[in-house]
Amino acid sequence: MDELTRAICAARDAADPLAPLRAHFDLDAADARGEIYLDGNSLGPLPRATGERVWQVLHDEWGRDLIRSWNTAGWITLSQRIGDKIARLVGAGPGELVVADSTSVNLYKVLAAAMSLAAAAAPATRRTIVSERTNFPTDLYIADTAAKERGFSLALVDADDLPTAINDTTAIVMLTHVNYRTGRMHDMAAVTKAAHAAGALVVWDLAHSAGAVPVSLSGDGTPGSAADFAVGCGYKYLNGGPGAPAFVWVHPAHTARMDAEGWRQPLAGWLGHAAPFAFTTDYQPGAGITRFICGTPPVLSLAALECGVNTMLAAESFGGMAAVRQKSLALTDLFLALVAFRCAGYGLTPVTPDEHARRGSQASLAHPTGGYPMMQALIARGVIGDFRAPDILRFGFTPLYTRYVDVWDAVDRLAQVLESGEWREARFAVRAAVT
Amino acid sequence: MDELTRAICAARDAADPLAPLRAHFDLDAADARGEIYLDGNSLGPLPRATGERVWQVLHDEWGRDLIRSWNTAGWITLSQRIGDKIARLVGAGPGELVVADSTSVNLYKVLAAAMSLAAAAAPATRRTIVSERTNFPTDLYIADTAAKERGFSLALVDADDLPTAINDTTAIVMLTHVNYRTGRMHDMAAVTKAAHAAGALVVWDLAHSAGAVPVSLSGDGTPGSAADFAVGCGYKYLNGGPGAPAFVWVHPAHTARMDAEGWRQPLAGWLGHAAPFAFTTDYQPGAGITRFICGTPPVLSLAALECGVNTMLAAESFGGMAAVRQKSLALTDLFLALVAFRCAGYGLTPVTPDEHARRGSQASLAHPTGGYPMMQALIARGVIGDFRAPDILRFGFTPLYTRYVDVWDAVDRLAQVLESGEWREARFAVRAAVT
Repeated sequence: MDELTRAICAARDAADPLAPLRAHFDLDAADARGEIYLDGNSLGPLPRATGERVWQVLHDEWGRDLIRSWNTAGWITLSQRIGDKIARLVGAGPGELVVADSTSVNLYKVLAAAMSLAAAAAPATRRTIVSERTNFPTDLYIADTAAKERGFSLALVDADDLPTAINDTTAIVMLTHVNYRTGRMHDMAAVTKAAHAAGALVVWDLAHSAGAVPVSLSGDGTPGSAADFAVGCGYKYLNGGPGAPAFVWVHPAHTARMDAEGWRQPLAGWLGHAAPFAFTTDYQPGAGITRFICGTPPVLSLAALECGVNTMLAAESFGGMAAVRQKSLALTDLFLALVAFRCAGYGLTPVTPDEHARRGSQASLAHPTGGYPMMQALIARGVIGDFRAPDILRFGFTPLYTRYVDVWDAVDRLAQVLESGEWREARFAVRAAVT
Repeated sequence: MDELTRAICAARDAADPLAPLRAHFDLDAADARGEIYLDGNSLGPLPRATGERVWQVLHDEWGRDLIRSWNTAGWITLSQRIGDKIARLVGAGPGELVVADSTSVNLYKVLAAAMSLAAAAAPATRRTIVSERTNFPTDLYIADTAAKERGFSLALVDADDLPTAINDTTAIVMLTHVNYRTGRMHDMAAVTKAAHAAGALVVWDLAHSAGAVPVSLSGDGTPGSAADFAVGCGYKYLNGGPGAPAFVWVHPAHTARMDAEGWRQPLAGWLGHAAPFAFTTDYQPGAGITRFICGTPPVLSLAALECGVNTMLAAESFGGMAAVRQKSLALTDLFLALVAFRCAGYGLTPVTPDEHARRGSQASLAHPTGGYPMMQALIARGVIGDFRAPDILRFGFTPLYTRYVDVWDAVDRLAQVLESGEWREARFAVRAAVT
């Protein structure tokens, strides 16, 4: 470790093929403050292109052209257009994925679809949705509620117990690909195949995967490896802005069956109708994935989301998701190594797996009592991570704009926080509404 | 009629107490084109304040302050803050109404709540949701789907048959206060009382009411006149921008009961949790109306919505909703009178009620075959209304920015379209995606 210096980090930045992409983001204010933003896994930063695009939507499309922009500016197909772009990032085909609503709402839709398929195909002894105890809470809330409504139940297990928990009572396996707390990543193809082998369907939440790690919803080429359903978030690694609309994907074999059976999802709103502007009394679901659209989408937020997605697509000219992944692992490796070297003896325990195949694009450290104030003290020193109750200091590493020197400086400041003991000051214990 | 001239219309504009409010909107491009925008009931125009506010959210709150804006810029309570403002426009109290999701999604939530109450309180013979056959389709789609899931059924009747259709089999009466096609308005207090007298709950869709006509969800002071549930739209008369988030209101007596029973709505997402950032595994619904929030809201679109709502609140200094209503009726009276005088003999039939108490803030004309091309020809002459299948030419009158001379000029151009017969030209028959 003694030969690793800040200069070496700077040299790695100079050789980084993704380095030019940092210019796509407006990090001027953060840079001027000497701040290191390691919270892009919670809220991606503002792409430089977004301001002009939103201005255009506001002033030209809405202000000047008014209602006609539904046609002339393509607002009416925006959900599909952005969906096709996101599909490229998650190994899905064109026309298979749409942007709509929030992750929570989309999860409700696909769980209803999965339970409908399970109820039609499987005996009443197969009515369990298996998920991970530390899955993101909204997924558990939505699943528990939707399951109870339909005579299913939600069973929560630890990640390590999944292989035995998936059995002939399992209707659905619902997992977040990368755990929001630990950064631990599931082997999507392996879990999907195991679930399919057990006769279950799989729903993946890609909130911490889309734009963060390579994803192939259509599988790895081996039988049974293609996923069934997926949802994901627009405001984290996709840089779509606060509360950006979410996305939903369904395997085309399932939507083909829905087409054949006229199946409707529970939130059967007018823009998921086959002919919304026919204004007919009866609902006729739109073909394929379009039935998963519900009401009128928030166009301003959609426009910003498209700019965010474009920042990820820009990486395609610089090695694409493979290059993003390579740098992401290098950044988290560097962080974990520096923390081990510089921050030993203060009770911090890394909870993100060492093994690359099981690691997302974040690194988390647990502390039994000091997690919250340590993070506040670190933020006061200009390193923006976040705290996840009850004990996690969380750091997101986003290769489009995070530099190796940022990692160095972040750990340097964390070491200062720990060495000084300043995190014990009362001011760092005051909780904000959002933590 | 022979003494009504454009000069008289101009004189009425000069005396209009609401006239100063037109300056709150950026109609410069429409004005430069000589265009008259009578489609604010579909998409309200851009408020002048919106651009700067959205710029601020983009560049200062998101770009500069990043994740901390959830606290420092109050993003986390934006749904409630805007909800309190909308509450003032619909006769609801502070803390009773939140902005969230789309109208369709919110309708699903409140119908689930209403069905839950009905199932708990009423015999199994009372399982019908009564609505109007010409209600906006998304309401019917959502209700039909939600009803079937829960052992209820949707019964559609003509508006005139409502009094007899509401009986001891009726669990819920679900109506849009002002019909999107005809502009016919229900007597909210009377229908609510009749439904309550029959033992039913009432769900109101205020899409064409909020900001358009006076609404009192808390009733008219007589027993049983307070509504039970309401949803509404942000992008029509509230000028919130394309696809602006919607709102949801529940009578505080119902939310008090939900609090006591720990009742959760089906879309039990994390931001409707009592303590979202505790990240607990079990869902504990937030108090009161906050349980009707689901996922993370689209902040850019919320910010624009607030500016739109502010334009309506600005009317409070100029006579408020009473003045808005008075002018709205004067505008639709003028339009209908001028159409009767100038456009007779062309097969156009007004379908908006003459009676003020039954009229919303729009005027609709039916034509058996020519509705679509007539509207296209009128749009080509710079009068922007819209067509609603199969036969309705629809005109919205929005007193904050529509002038009496606009009404005169619109009818003048409609007369030209009819007298010239130009609407029969093939080019006007070509359908756009959104009509």
